[in-house]
Formats: sequence, C-alpha cells, structure tokens
Amino acid sequence: MMERHFDENLQALKYQLMKMSALAEVMISDAIKAVVDRNEEVIPAVYEREELVNQMQVEIDETCLTQIALHQPAAGDLRFIMGAAKANADLERLADEAINIVKRAKTLLTEPPLKPFIIIPEMAMIARGMVRDSLHAFVNRNANLAREVMFRDDRLDALKTAIAAELTDCMTMESSAVSRALNLLLVSRYLERIGDHATNIAEISIFVVEGRDVRHHADRKP
Amino acid sequence: MMERHFDENLQALKYQLMKMSALAEVMISDAIKAVVDRNEEVIPAVYEREELVNQMQVEIDETCLTQIALHQPAAGDLRFIMGAAKANADLERLADEAINIVKRAKTLLTEPPLKPFIIIPEMAMIARGMVRDSLHAFVNRNANLAREVMFRDDRLDALKTAIAAELTDCMTMESSAVSRALNLLLVSRYLERIGDHATNIAEISIFVVEGRDVRHHADRKP
Repeated sequence: MMERHFDENLQALKYQLMKMSALAEVMISDAIKAVVDRNEEVIPAVYEREELVNQMQVEIDETCLTQIALHQPAAGDLRFIMGAAKANADLERLADEAINIVKRAKTLLTEPPLKPFIIIPEMAMIARGMVRDSLHAFVNRNANLAREVMFRDDRLDALKTAIAAELTDCMTMESSAVSRALNLLLVSRYLERIGDHATNIAEISIFVVEGRDVRHHADRKP
Repeated sequence: MMERHFDENLQALKYQLMKMSALAEVMISDAIKAVVDRNEEVIPAVYEREELVNQMQVEIDETCLTQIALHQPAAGDLRFIMGAAKANADLERLADEAINIVKRAKTLLTEPPLKPFIIIPEMAMIARGMVRDSLHAFVNRNANLAREVMFRDDRLDALKTAIAAELTDCMTMESSAVSRALNLLLVSRYLERIGDHATNIAEISIFVVEGRDVRHHADRKP
C-alpha cells in the first residue's frame, strides 16, 4: 500500500513538472511574439504565467522533500527525486528568461523595427523545443532524447554567434541602431540561456537514467 | 556511532562547499584582473580552477545522494543536504561566469583600453563578497547574513543599469567603440549573474534555517 502510494506521488510529481514546462514553453513563445510580431497584447499573460511557475516551483520542492522524508526511496528513485528538484530550479529560471525577453520587447516597441527577423525566431523555436524535449527525456527516463537535446544546443550557440556579429556590424555602421541592436542582442542571449537550462535538464536526465555524470565531459554528444 | 559518522560527513560536505566557493571567488577576481588590469597571465589559472570546480561539483552531488541514501536524515538535515545539492549547482554556474568574463577579456585585450574602469571593479567586489557571504550563511545556517546578501543584489542591479546607459552612449557616439563597449557590457551582465547565483544560495540558506520559502516574496529584504 505504501509502495503504491509512493508510485502515485511520483506520477503526480512528473505531472507537476510537465505542467510547469508547458507554462514555460508558452511564456517563451509569447515573449518572442512580443518581440518579432510586435504584439504587446501577449505581455500580461507572460507575467501571469510567471506567477504560476513560481508557485509551482515552491510546491514541487516541497513534494520532493516530503517524498524523500516519508518514503526513504531506494537509489534509483532517490536520484529521480533529487533530479526533479534540480530540474525544477532550471524550469523556474528559464521561465525568468521569458520575462527578461518581455522587458526588452517593451523597449523595442518604443522604436520602429530595425530589420526583418530571421535568426531570433529560429533560436526561439530551437530553445522552446529543447525545453519540451528535455522535460520529456526527464520524466520518461529517455537518455537518447536527452543526448539529442544537448546536441541541439550547438546550433543555438552558432546562431547566437551569428546574430552577435550581425548586430555588432549594425551598431558600428548606424549609430541610431545602437539601442535596438543591443536589446535584440540581449534577447538572443536570453534564448541562449534557455537552451543552457534545457541542457542542464538533459544532463540531469542522463544522470538519473544511467547513474553516471555526463557534465563536464567531451563525449556527451549522441 | 552511526550518528557521529553522519555529523562528520555533514562537516565534510560543508568543507567541500567552502573550498568550492573559495575557488570560485579567486576565479572571479582573476577574471576581472584580466579585464581591468589587462593582465593576461592570470587567465590560464582561471581555466585550471574551473576544472577543479567541475570535479568538486560531481563529488558534492555524489556526497549528497549517499548521505541521504545511507542515513535517511530527519527533516532539518534533509533540507540542508537538498540545499547543498542546489547551492552546489549555483556555485558551478557562477564559476562558469568567470570563464565567460575571461573570454571577453581575451577579445578586449586585442584593442586599446576604452576608458578608465570605475563601475566594473565595484561590481566585481560586490559579486565576490556576495558569493563568499552566501556560502557562509549557508554552512553556518545564518539567515540574517543571507538576507543581507540579498539586499546587496539591489546595488549590483543599479550598477548594471548605470554601466549599460554609459556604454550605450559610448557606442552611439563613437562607432569605433562598439565592439569594446559591447564586451564590457557583457562582462557587467556576467557579474550580475554571479550576484543572482549568490542570491539563490542566500534564499536556499533561509529555507534551510527557517523552513520557509523566501523566493518570490516581496518581503525578503532585511
């Protein structure tokens, strides 16, 4: 009976994490809509979802502590719950990056658009996908998917470098572009951070499944 | 006997975290020396210390898991160990920011200095102090010190805003300054991140001591 109860609680924990991830994913999409489509109307919802994410973070931490204290789980489940507590922290922080993007969007909306957006929408799509799939990898204990997520981070880094070069040129050539280019550069950095957090969650997933640490190793690619 | 053994292991865990924090603090100072004093010679040591920090992170996580699995600690100690695992993640990531600063320093050293440094050294001093004191607050279960650390983050944010305005002006007025100003702006953002991680550790400390969550509350100031 105790056993069954613990399994149900683990399922509930997974469900909470998936829900938090879904909220964060929508926050990222909406934040980018504010930048790329110049859509101000989505902004309040991003702040509302952040409130929910913050509440969920506190609840998930509480769940993790309670489950360990009450059920004294064995090695595999203990690793999973410790991993959930860490993934929880990464989810909350990547949701914060959506708020950072919205703040830049507000400033960008006070000026005419700088130029058509090509790299930022692609970065946003990759970052959001990494969030979704890193969480899937975690709750489904899928190490292959986790490795695949980590691989995508290289593409995100390459795009970040490309857009930095482009925006630096833009600022050098046209002084009236400085403020807008700078804000867009920060947006690209926030998207890169989201990718970093998803990579952390992917690393945690591999540790939970395989019991070995893939952080700080060169051989982590699929 | 088991009891004594567990207390000794907790002491060892605290010692590991303090050692990791000390490494990170030196990394921050050296990274800023590379930027402000244009001292290239300190750079290799920053990378060497990062290797040590990465190793320690894996060891500390292992210690946390083992202590929970073997000793099934009661509520207060369990919170402390879960907190140690989280503080561990923040320490590793703030040490990474020192590496990010060094990368910017390398680019900055290829050009003549832009102007005298005033804000960045102050930001670095505050950030380093926040790291040291957040760890002290954690291992000594000192919630007052933790609150004081969180308070200092406001000063860091104000300095970040001030230097962003200064560097944006600089880029707008002088196109040859764009690349250097941008790199310095990123250095200031990395220092801000270090302060954010120290704030996280301070929040963890308060949770461990008081068993209540001070994240996401407006009343967290001392």
